Amino acid sequence: MKTVRVSIIGFGAVGQGVAKAILSTKETLIEQGIDLRVVGISDSKGSEINAGGIDLKRALERKKQKGTVAKCKDDALEIIKNVEHEIVVEATPTNIKNGEPGSSNMFAAFGSGKHVVTSNKGPLALRFSELKEAAEDNGVFFRYEATVGGAVPIFNLIHEALAGNRVIGIEGILNGTTNYILTRMAEERLTYELALKEAQELGIAETDPSYDVEGIDSACKLVILANSVFGRAATYRDVEVTGITKITPEALELASKNNYVVKLICEAGNGTLTVAPRLVPKKHPLAVGGTLNVASILTDLAGRITISGKGAGSIETASSILSDILYIVRNS
Amino acid sequence: MKTVRVSIIGFGAVGQGVAKAILSTKETLIEQGIDLRVVGISDSKGSEINAGGIDLKRALERKKQKGTVAKCKDDALEIIKNVEHEIVVEATPTNIKNGEPGSSNMFAAFGSGKHVVTSNKGPLALRFSELKEAAEDNGVFFRYEATVGGAVPIFNLIHEALAGNRVIGIEGILNGTTNYILTRMAEERLTYELALKEAQELGIAETDPSYDVEGIDSACKLVILANSVFGRAATYRDVEVTGITKITPEALELASKNNYVVKLICEAGNGTLTVAPRLVPKKHPLAVGGTLNVASILTDLAGRITISGKGAGSIETASSILSDILYIVRNS
Repeated sequence: MKTVRVSIIGFGAVGQGVAKAILSTKETLIEQGIDLRVVGISDSKGSEINAGGIDLKRALERKKQKGTVAKCKDDALEIIKNVEHEIVVEATPTNIKNGEPGSSNMFAAFGSGKHVVTSNKGPLALRFSELKEAAEDNGVFFRYEATVGGAVPIFNLIHEALAGNRVIGIEGILNGTTNYILTRMAEERLTYELALKEAQELGIAETDPSYDVEGIDSACKLVILANSVFGRAATYRDVEVTGITKITPEALELASKNNYVVKLICEAGNGTLTVAPRLVPKKHPLAVGGTLNVASILTDLAGRITISGKGAGSIETASSILSDILYIVRNS
Repeated sequence: MKTVRVSIIGFGAVGQGVAKAILSTKETLIEQGIDLRVVGISDSKGSEINAGGIDLKRALERKKQKGTVAKCKDDALEIIKNVEHEIVVEATPTNIKNGEPGSSNMFAAFGSGKHVVTSNKGPLALRFSELKEAAEDNGVFFRYEATVGGAVPIFNLIHEALAGNRVIGIEGILNGTTNYILTRMAEERLTYELALKEAQELGIAETDPSYDVEGIDSACKLVILANSVFGRAATYRDVEVTGITKITPEALELASKNNYVVKLICEAGNGTLTVAPRLVPKKHPLAVGGTLNVASILTDLAGRITISGKGAGSIETASSILSDILYIVRNS
């Protein structure tokens, strides 16, 4: 039996999803000879630490009832540095202004010889190459499948499943909120404002939707993709971005009459990094509806490979985090 | 530098594709510290052997000019058993009557402690569990990404990228020929006979198309998928199969009016293994056209993940073989 000790830093929707995913796969993992233990959980109010493995069911209940998992005052950095474990799951909220507290947490993890698995886009959209270097310098893994495409394993597809291929370009829809709004506008001839309101009522869009509808979230994801795949050192500010706020139902109707849909497409190719509304033929593999995310990878040998799935949701994001944890377990 | 020695058994379209793919990635691999050498190639007329690495450009030219790569009389089994190397690429033609010569080649490879990477469906559609056991008994890898979906990395997606997920069901279009025929019938209101003739003229369908249009090729692929993913021990004869030969343009037109397309869908779920024409909503991720292949994987955590790409072609199939070779290099 291989014991793997994990901390969960940040216990919001994603962190809790990770706890649930670990709970639901515990038996299967033990059958595979993997004893996956969460030895530390921290949220903004404090932490729980247990070297023998935290009772995740109880931790989830306590969080639900008291709004915090805290049993002691230790903060994230103390857990990362002082608790003996192998993998830090960094799941604090995305902050695209300065990447904190995610960046500090990740650098602290690397500095203390721990692998990092993260869903936190901020640090990667701002300081990707520094983080990658810190991981390499310390001889540990840095995995971030959950930062782009939610449950869709885009990085694993490119780096492992398509190993040997040279990636020529990537196009995709990497934001479920804008895809939902555009899909509803086209299907029901809604105005942008009405479709946004519906999305907000369903919890698909935030009260302040600008991060999604202005294309910033898409730009962050695109930059992480481009840096990872093409070895670039871009930040999200290098992306040419146009959002969806000025799209009219009339434009969508005209597109539809010509067998097109309008989608907020992210594109990374030879030097280009753009996020903009584009006409996509209805039959094209990129023309997925609802809140789906999709990525289409153009390669030299395999040609075009397209993958789609749920781009958000706590258990879906946790699926990507879990697959990254298991990658590290297999390869270390 | 890690030296990895490979034999290519079978030097038809796929085997030659593998040689071309290795040639075109040679420099990138060397940058990654991998010296991938082909030390033996065999076709039906004989072999070339070179412990220092065969000149692949010359081998491909000789094959083109003389119809064979043969420089000596050694046959496949002699190369597999007697030439020192790590990985056997088994790329002989699929034979679904008795799986030969593929089965014997694979068992010989396992028996002499060599990993197997294959595109050959026959042995796996007939004797999957025996082959898997032989690989395990000898402590070597058995990889077969190229047997299903051409360039589409379905097995890698399920076993590695979605690691931690439980697969609930799989649906897909796993045969490009029938997809092309059905797409053309729907788009151009062609009869089955006319669309088949067009596909034959374009080299998409064989002179004797029964293996494709009766659904046998799809059944073979489905059974390999089900055995690999659900740990079953089925053969392609366990699949309930209906082909596409009785579909009329009128049926397709009626479907289209109701926003459906008809596709030859492979389905593996709780105990079921079926290949049959099915109505698929035009907006559904499975509704891909032309010769594309697609697989939609329903999982407990990630939800539904759909992947599509080219299902045939020698360089595309070689892409899957190369990614399997690199998986073995990374993990051994």
